[in-house]
Order: sequence, then structure tokens, then C-alpha cells
Amino acid sequence: MTVAPELLYLLTGDPAEFAEVVAGMQPADVADALRSLTPEAAARVVAALPFDLAVLVLDAPELENRREIVRAMDPRISGPLVDAMSGDQQAELFREMPEPERARLLPALHPKGRESLQLLLKYPPESAGGIMTTEFLSVPATWNVEQALQLIRRVGGAKETVYAVYVLDPENGSLRHVVSLRELILSDRARRVDQVGSTRDPLTVTPWMDREEVARLISKYDLLAVPVVDPNGRVLGIVTVDDVIDALVAETTEDVQKFGGMAALDEPYMEIGLPRMLRKRAGWLAALFVGEMLTATAMGHYEHEIERAVVLALFVPLIISSGGNSGSQATSLIIRAMALGEVRLRDWWRVAVRELPSGLCLGAFLGVIGVGRIYLWQELGWYDYGPHYPLVALTVGVALVGVVTFGSLAGSMLPFVLRRLGFDPASASAPFVATLVDVTGLVIFFSVGLLILRGTLL
Amino acid sequence: MTVAPELLYLLTGDPAEFAEVVAGMQPADVADALRSLTPEAAARVVAALPFDLAVLVLDAPELENRREIVRAMDPRISGPLVDAMSGDQQAELFREMPEPERARLLPALHPKGRESLQLLLKYPPESAGGIMTTEFLSVPATWNVEQALQLIRRVGGAKETVYAVYVLDPENGSLRHVVSLRELILSDRARRVDQVGSTRDPLTVTPWMDREEVARLISKYDLLAVPVVDPNGRVLGIVTVDDVIDALVAETTEDVQKFGGMAALDEPYMEIGLPRMLRKRAGWLAALFVGEMLTATAMGHYEHEIERAVVLALFVPLIISSGGNSGSQATSLIIRAMALGEVRLRDWWRVAVRELPSGLCLGAFLGVIGVGRIYLWQELGWYDYGPHYPLVALTVGVALVGVVTFGSLAGSMLPFVLRRLGFDPASASAPFVATLVDVTGLVIFFSVGLLILRGTLL
Repeated sequence: MTVAPELLYLLTGDPAEFAEVVAGMQPADVADALRSLTPEAAARVVAALPFDLAVLVLDAPELENRREIVRAMDPRISGPLVDAMSGDQQAELFREMPEPERARLLPALHPKGRESLQLLLKYPPESAGGIMTTEFLSVPATWNVEQALQLIRRVGGAKETVYAVYVLDPENGSLRHVVSLRELILSDRARRVDQVGSTRDPLTVTPWMDREEVARLISKYDLLAVPVVDPNGRVLGIVTVDDVIDALVAETTEDVQKFGGMAALDEPYMEIGLPRMLRKRAGWLAALFVGEMLTATAMGHYEHEIERAVVLALFVPLIISSGGNSGSQATSLIIRAMALGEVRLRDWWRVAVRELPSGLCLGAFLGVIGVGRIYLWQELGWYDYGPHYPLVALTVGVALVGVVTFGSLAGSMLPFVLRRLGFDPASASAPFVATLVDVTGLVIFFSVGLLILRGTLL
Repeated sequence: MTVAPELLYLLTGDPAEFAEVVAGMQPADVADALRSLTPEAAARVVAALPFDLAVLVLDAPELENRREIVRAMDPRISGPLVDAMSGDQQAELFREMPEPERARLLPALHPKGRESLQLLLKYPPESAGGIMTTEFLSVPATWNVEQALQLIRRVGGAKETVYAVYVLDPENGSLRHVVSLRELILSDRARRVDQVGSTRDPLTVTPWMDREEVARLISKYDLLAVPVVDPNGRVLGIVTVDDVIDALVAETTEDVQKFGGMAALDEPYMEIGLPRMLRKRAGWLAALFVGEMLTATAMGHYEHEIERAVVLALFVPLIISSGGNSGSQATSLIIRAMALGEVRLRDWWRVAVRELPSGLCLGAFLGVIGVGRIYLWQELGWYDYGPHYPLVALTVGVALVGVVTFGSLAGSMLPFVLRRLGFDPASASAPFVATLVDVTGLVIFFSVGLLILRGTLL
């Protein structure tokens, strides 16, 4: 491809020509190209695409402004396209729509599709029920392999995946067994489907399970899909591996942005408008700022000591940042260990028992560097910390042990506290931890100073 | 299961009994259970498992101490097991082994497996070549669908995936076409395989492509596997979706830990020993500490001003933390946008142009809160900032605009600088940014103070 199709369209304005150029491209790439057009132009192009490609393009999560494009289309054209979309993407589209747009599009769907759409919309978008697809292949347990293969050949084109076949109890329709297409192909044609493949109970999830948890299961057991079942064991839908990858990527973005101390952006950085981005960032920044104002109060409390020993003030940024850094290390470790399921809520004391010696060692290490720095500067004549400089150095060293230990402990416990209170532990951002630790760091520093320097400087 | 199998083993000490209990379990769960045994005990248990389950257990990435377990086994038993492992996991196992252990195990492998193992070991573990598997199904383009299906039935059991069949040029063996098992099943049996399915050129990757990049491709195009080809278009292996999920999870862990300001742990938090964890954490902590020592130098530079206007010192923690927080937000945004491919190196100035107004607005917002706080405390009589308190408030407000703007700019540019220098942009941790911004924040604050307060307080 020498000319980008979106450029060509801007030059010629002919949707048919655009459609012809992109016909040989991957649907995700067509979706990418459509992003630079207005919704109205994109709607004309989608309408001019071959039907199957148009459906695949609408199915691509890369199509950011899908809702606007569908809205810009004639419902007689958009109806059949949306009807043919995969169930999970259809649900995502409807979730973005306000009620009047939904009402306009719903009648265009087949009654069966409408029903399963309404099922999906019942569940939160970050749950298994919210990302599942209701198109899956099921057969009664009494069928044999040949019958199952024939069914796949007949209806397989319309299902999102044919690589797993769900074997149901012919009496009550509950899930009895899962057999993969590979196992069917390799097996004797006359065998009963429930006799093929693994004898283990099939892995299932509830529709309310968090999508991150589902991703963990699929990743751990190397599955291509996992069935979502209701309390009676009936299959509501399946979550496929590609939905899980999308979910993993989205969760990672959310976690990284939260850890940076802001609300999740939910839109690509280069595309989000300035007012929206400011709103996403200002909230946390202001909250942290208000928390950090306590440092001014704490410093005010020690104003008298600072006046008498200005030398102490020089080390304030160094001391409190060390607490913040060790806290941020500990928090990132625990957040990730929680996300991977390595650490559970009840493990909090085991973590505390690990972080206490870690903090003491790391604090002592930094303390030695800090004391060395003060002696070195003093001896080399680079700075004069006054006649009591050994006591000042001691104060800094002891305070560092205390601050780093407290930082490690507080940073590691914060995700537990948040989870216990029902918040996402990933909200324990590095800035959050730093703010929490700063005030305590000041109190530790000045308390140590009062103990060591009373009678000399203070 | 009422008694955990590892407990049972500790009670009875009988590997056969353990093997019997776990026989109905998922391989990943057996691997989990084995982790709490010594390598010697685990080796005895694996040897007692049915051969196929033992291979699957050794294949599970959950088996943390796989190398030690294999080493503890008789090579006559471990040889056939390792030989039957999937190619990519085999390569990971050999990568962990020192030369003598490799030499002991290599002769036990089939010559063909040995060859493809040596191919995989040529590539770095984080590249497509390092995580690919060499077991895939290929057919000449002249075959028909029936022939391909028969091949799958004959050899499919031994291949990691049968869901994609690679159609090769019969002349030079280069990749011509990819057809999915689903397309084969749905197609007419007499058709030539290269006439089935999409007419698009198959997506391929080079063996040197970063695994994160491969993950992005697989996720974008919803693939179950992507072929890895050499410069002549011959297929070296394939990267499957489950490898990609494992890679995504590992990369996320690395990124979160790095962003928390430490080296990647590479081991589960609850299992790593204290000395190793200290080493991973102490390095960055000490580097940040040394960087942060510049704040003591900067503060020393303004010692005279602090002596005369102690009230300024009270706001030092508040000012510098605001710079650090806004910087950490900006960094996390850009790191993630880079990882998702939304932002490239050459976009640096577009990012700067977005961050400048963001920083100014956010800084002004915090500045207003800060000024309000000082006025409020003063008017309510909660604290006395002296007769010149309106000027002190102005200093704090203006400094906040400057510090937050600088923080946003520096935080957003740091990942670009790191990438330009050949480092991982994810190394731009929140503490790194905070340290970078702290010194500048102090200079901005005191410079603003000198400008505004000269003649009154200073």
C-alpha cells in the first residue's frame, strides 16, 4: 500500500473507492484508517464495504468512534450490520448508546439476538458476563463425534469460536463436559461426545467474576475459552481468549495510570481532549495536595526548632523522599503480588513480617550513606554543618532508619487496607503512598532531632 | 478435594499416593502443589505420575523450581519427559541450566528435538524467537483440504496447536498462506488448501521482534498464533496465544515493579529470599537517595533565606511533592501510551505541546487551593504566617504553577529521553521522576520567593 486509504478518501471523497482500497486489508487496520475520518464519512465508507468486512470492522475494538459511526448510518443499513456483529462487541456498542439510539436500533435485531443482548447488558462491563459472547456450540451428551462435527460444519461459520464444543445434559441442559475441536478431529467418529477428551470436570466461571480473574484462569490453564454458567450449571456464554487479552491490556493501562496517581484515562493519550484530561488528572492531584498540606501543619509545629537549627531544614526533602521511595517500592510489589494472586488479604501479617526487616536493612543502608555524606562534606570543607555536625549526622542517620522502615511497612499495608475497605488495591498509587509517608516522616525526623540534639542545638 | 495433596505427602511420604491424588487435577494445579515440596520430593512425585500428566506438569510455567526438580531426577527418567515437553518450555528450562546440566540432558533428546531446541536458544528469551514453538503443522500448497485434515488426524496429537495450518510453497518452502482448522472444516474437501480462507497475505513476525510487540499484533488481529519467519519466508516456528498471555502478564509485573522504583523481582514476592529482595530494592533506592542528596545541597544554598524567613521552609514539602505528583502522572501516561504504540519517539514535541497547557492549568488549580489555605488559616487564626502573609501566599501560588508545569513537562519527556538513549522507558519510575523534579522545585520555589519577598521578608 503506497497511499494511506484515509488520505485517498480525503482526496477523492468517494466512499466506494476507499472501500475498494481497504478490501484486502485486515479489519483492525481498516478500523484504524477510519479513525481519521468524520463519523459521517466513516459511515458512508462502512456502508460501501462488502457486508462481511463491514461487520468485522464494526467488531474491531480499534474502532474508537463506533457509536458515532453507527448513529450516522441509516438504520436500514446499520441494523443488519449490528445484528451480525459478535455478541460481546454488540453489547459494548449498546452500552455506549443513550436510550433513544438503542430504541431506534433494537427492532432491527433478530428476536434471538435481542434476547441475548439484553442478557449481556445485565452484567457490569468488567465482569465475565459483560465480556462473554453468547454464540457458542453446544450438543447433547448423547450425540456422537460425527454428529458434532456435522453440526460444526453446518453452523460453525456463524459462531465466534468453534474450537470448544460444550456438551450438555440432555435432561436439564446443564454443562456436563467440554470437548475441543482438536479432540473431536482426533477421535473415533462413532464415540459419544462425552467420552472424548479429558475426564476432569470442566472449568467454569460465574457471570459476576471479575474479568481480571477470568484472564488469570484462562492464562493459567492455557484455555481458548471458558464457559460462563448460571447457578443451575446452564451455559450463559463463553469468554474467549481474545476478549481476555483485550481485557488484560485495558487493565494494565488502568493499573499503570492509577499507580501514577490519577484516574484511568479510558481514551488514547493523543486523542483525549484537554478538558477531559484535566478532569481526570486534577481530582487526584488536588486530593494529594490537600493531604500534603498536612506537611505544612507539621512543619509549622516544628517552626521553633527550625528557627533554632536551620541545618535540620536542609535535610527535610532528603528524609521525606526516602520514606516515599521505599513506600512506593513496597506498594508496587504488593499490588502486583495481589493482582497475580500470590498474596491474599489474610496474608497481611506475613507481608508485614517480611517488610519489617527489609525496611530496617534498607534504612540502615541509606542511613550509612547519609552519615557518610555529612562527614565527607564537613571534612572536605564543602559545607559547614556547625560544631555539632556529628550529632546532626546521627540525627539524619537514625531518622532514615525510622522513615524507611515506616515507609516500607505503610506502603506494603496500604493495598491491604484499601482492599479490606472494598477499594481497588491498585489505587494505592506511588504519590498516594508518598503523601501518606511524608507527614509521618517529618514527625519521625524532628522527634529524633529533639531526642539527640536537646541541650546542644535545640 | 478435602486434604491438600502436598499435606498428604508430608504425612505419608509416599509419592505414589500423592500421584494418585493429583491424577484428576489440572496440570497447573499439580505444579502449584509441587512448589511446597523439596525438589527431591517433587522429583519422586513427578516420576510417579502418569507419563502424559508428568509432561504437562513440567510444561506448566507455574512450576517455579522446575530446573531443580529435573536435576534431582535420574536422567533416564527425566530424559524422555523433557523430550516430550513443548518446545518453548523446553527452551526455557535449558536457558536456566548451567552447561554441565545441559550436557547431561541433551543426549536424551531426539536429534530433531535437539536441533530445534538449539534454534530456540539462539534468540533472546524476550523475543519472538525465544518464546516460539517449533511444533506446527505445515502442508504444501498443492494439497487439498482432505489431505490436510488427514494429516491433522494423524499427527495432530503431538503438535502444540492444530488450529492453524501453514501452507508452504512446494518449491522453496516459504510461507504462502495460513488456513485455520475452522476454515478447513467448513470448506469443500476437494479444494486446494491455498484456495481456502482469507486472500490476505499472512501476518508474520521476525524472530527478533520483541515479545510485547508480538502480543500487540496477536491482540489486535485476534489471532490464535502468529508464524515466525526467516528472511527467506520460511517458517521457523509459531508464537501461540497462550505464550503471549504469559508474556503480557510477565511484562506487566516488570513494568509495575519498575514504576515503583526498583529492579524487576523475577520471583514471586512471598518466595524470594530476603537477601535477594534487598539487592533488588537497595540499588535503585540508593541511586535515588544519592540523587536526592542534591536537595540538601540546594537547601544549603538557600540556608540564609530560610534563616530570615523560616515560614518559607514550612511549604517546602508541599511544593516539591506537588511537582513530583504531577510528574509521576505525566510519566505513567506516556509510558503506557508508548507501550500501547499510541505514542512514538518522534511524537515528543506533540506531547510537550499537550503537557505545557495541562501543567499550567493544573498548577494554577493547585495554586488557588494553596493560596486559599494560607488565607483561611491566617484569617481563622489557626496559624500566623506573619504580617506579609499575602506575599507568602503569592509566593506559594506562583511557585506551584511553575513547579507543576515543570513536573508535567519533565515527567512526560523523561520516557522519551530514556528510550532515545536505548533504555526501557518503563524505567522512568515515579520515584525517579520525583527525585528529578525535587531539586528543580526547590530552585523554582526559592527563586520565586526572592523575586516576590525581596525588601519585605528577604
